[in-house]
Amino acid sequence: PIQSEDIQEIVDPLPSWNDVTSKQNIIAFVSDVTNKDSENFIPVKDRISTFDNDGNLWSEQPAYFQLFFAMDRVKALANEHPEWKNKQPFKAVLENDMKTLLQQGEHGISTLVVESHAGMSTEAFETIVQDWVKTAKHPTKGVGFDKLVYQPMLELLDYLRANDFQTYIVSGGGVDFMRAFVTEIYGIPKEKIIGSRLKTEYKYNDGDPKIMRLAEFDFIDDKEGKPININTIIGKKPVFASGNSDGDLPMLQYAASNNYKSFMLYVHHTDAEREWAYDRESHIGKLDKGLDQALKDGWTVIDMKNDWKVIYPFEK
Amino acid sequence: PIQSEDIQEIVDPLPSWNDVTSKQNIIAFVSDVTNKDSENFIPVKDRISTFDNDGNLWSEQPAYFQLFFAMDRVKALANEHPEWKNKQPFKAVLENDMKTLLQQGEHGISTLVVESHAGMSTEAFETIVQDWVKTAKHPTKGVGFDKLVYQPMLELLDYLRANDFQTYIVSGGGVDFMRAFVTEIYGIPKEKIIGSRLKTEYKYNDGDPKIMRLAEFDFIDDKEGKPININTIIGKKPVFASGNSDGDLPMLQYAASNNYKSFMLYVHHTDAEREWAYDRESHIGKLDKGLDQALKDGWTVIDMKNDWKVIYPFEK
Ligand SMILES: [Ca+2]
Ligand SMILES: [Ca+2]
Repeated sequence: PIQSEDIQEIVDPLPSWNDVTSKQNIIAFVSDVTNKDSENFIPVKDRISTFDNDGNLWSEQPAYFQLFFAMDRVKALANEHPEWKNKQPFKAVLENDMKTLLQQGEHGISTLVVESHAGMSTEAFETIVQDWVKTAKHPTKGVGFDKLVYQPMLELLDYLRANDFQTYIVSGGGVDFMRAFVTEIYGIPKEKIIGSRLKTEYKYNDGDPKIMRLAEFDFIDDKEGKPININTIIGKKPVFASGNSDGDLPMLQYAASNNYKSFMLYVHHTDAEREWAYDRESHIGKLDKGLDQALKDGWTVIDMKNDWKVIYPFEK
Repeated sequence: PIQSEDIQEIVDPLPSWNDVTSKQNIIAFVSDVTNKDSENFIPVKDRISTFDNDGNLWSEQPAYFQLFFAMDRVKALANEHPEWKNKQPFKAVLENDMKTLLQQGEHGISTLVVESHAGMSTEAFETIVQDWVKTAKHPTKGVGFDKLVYQPMLELLDYLRANDFQTYIVSGGGVDFMRAFVTEIYGIPKEKIIGSRLKTEYKYNDGDPKIMRLAEFDFIDDKEGKPININTIIGKKPVFASGNSDGDLPMLQYAASNNYKSFMLYVHHTDAEREWAYDRESHIGKLDKGLDQALKDGWTVIDMKNDWKVIYPFEK
């Protein structure tokens, strides 16, 4: 008769991965730390894994998907704001001038996000995002943004959960933007999605309470903000952390300092044909110091072009 | 043969409760919303319950337990701070002058908490709290503070989890103080404990990263702060919310506005003999407007003296 151990060997938990070092490292780690007889065994309660989102679970080129949402919001709201026609960064958005828009820098992007995401209740914002996702299309791929998730990473999330890991998103992106539509795609519930956020205000509203979104950042969940938010919200150090840029380096360093054996994973964008190729010089998802430390400390680096059989689920 | 429905009827899920309205209401609610054939059925992912801690899951008299911890810390640190001898609120602590201490008001208490809880890493703070709990004794009950949890509420937490509810603590108390020692007592993991918090800072510390606790509040998880934090951290409106004071009223109002059928529960301190009796006039755990709204809107109110067979686990 077939034993359960045999079935584990027969069923490949990561079928969209080639038989490469990154895949072997992941399976070796999970097998080790979930083995009760191993000195590296990790109790279920401490199996915390944290995943960056943009460029790590889905694509982030030619700009963060949330920026396309913000641009569409600005266009939808333009009639109510005649002053935007002559004011950056709104002017660039209304003129579809991506080059000028990206020249506005971080402050310009922040202004755009804050102005287009605030001034409404959390429920109203959720509905707006969900309506947007139904029709918006990626500018070059021509499919919905929610289709551009990485099939191999979906398999990794499933594999970790099957081994009693909790899977969290810890992203620089807006927490409420993600919560509105990624829960079913990733199999990650709202309470395990962590991200940047606006300040909010509670209004009793005559017995119909609302959480109102204010036009001011409350927390930027990037760089040092990631371990800070992980400590605030989860209260445990991850044993598995995955990202694709220098913005994830503090999170990976934090995981690397775990007393338990831990796993640090970088996604390296090497596939100019099927996805995009960028790293040390990129304005989006710059991976430079992180790559150096990964190579120095023996962290696992996914070579997207070589390691993944398919990138997106629709290619299966 | 015995059917599973029969077993449910035989095994009383709340054995430390008398057969009273509060108990009947709780069981009727849980039975209804977990019944797939009920129009009030709530999917598992949305079964979020939130519990205040002080005065709701454990006692809070003659002062919040965390205040006794802060006082003991001030005494332990007094040699390093000779200026405290003549400076309030520290002077009152060092002179064991509770009356003067409580006259320092919220600002005095905050100063005490901030000064005694900051200036160290999260790990160091956790160890200090855990060491304190091992030896500290409640001033009148004479037992460890961790023994003064409410047995009937422990049963309620178990009962909800057995019915696939997530149980969260949402407390005005310090999140790291609670996380250090209540997880096993309540069966609630660190990531489901929400509370007030200090600002923190990430230090790379030459490869041994630390989250450092700063002497400034980051968030006060009380009153309107409770629904705000619930939205930030959980991202879902509770279907079951439980508290004991006006500080919980916004959280209960927030739950009451859920599109799902929801349950609002107040613990009313009516037992001067076995615990303490206080409500509308109390400086700690004042329950006034909340009690009015509970009575007006038909929320469930636990009459501690009448409803609970025992208060603490050691009385069983
Ligand atoms: Ca990223
Ligand atoms: Ca309370």
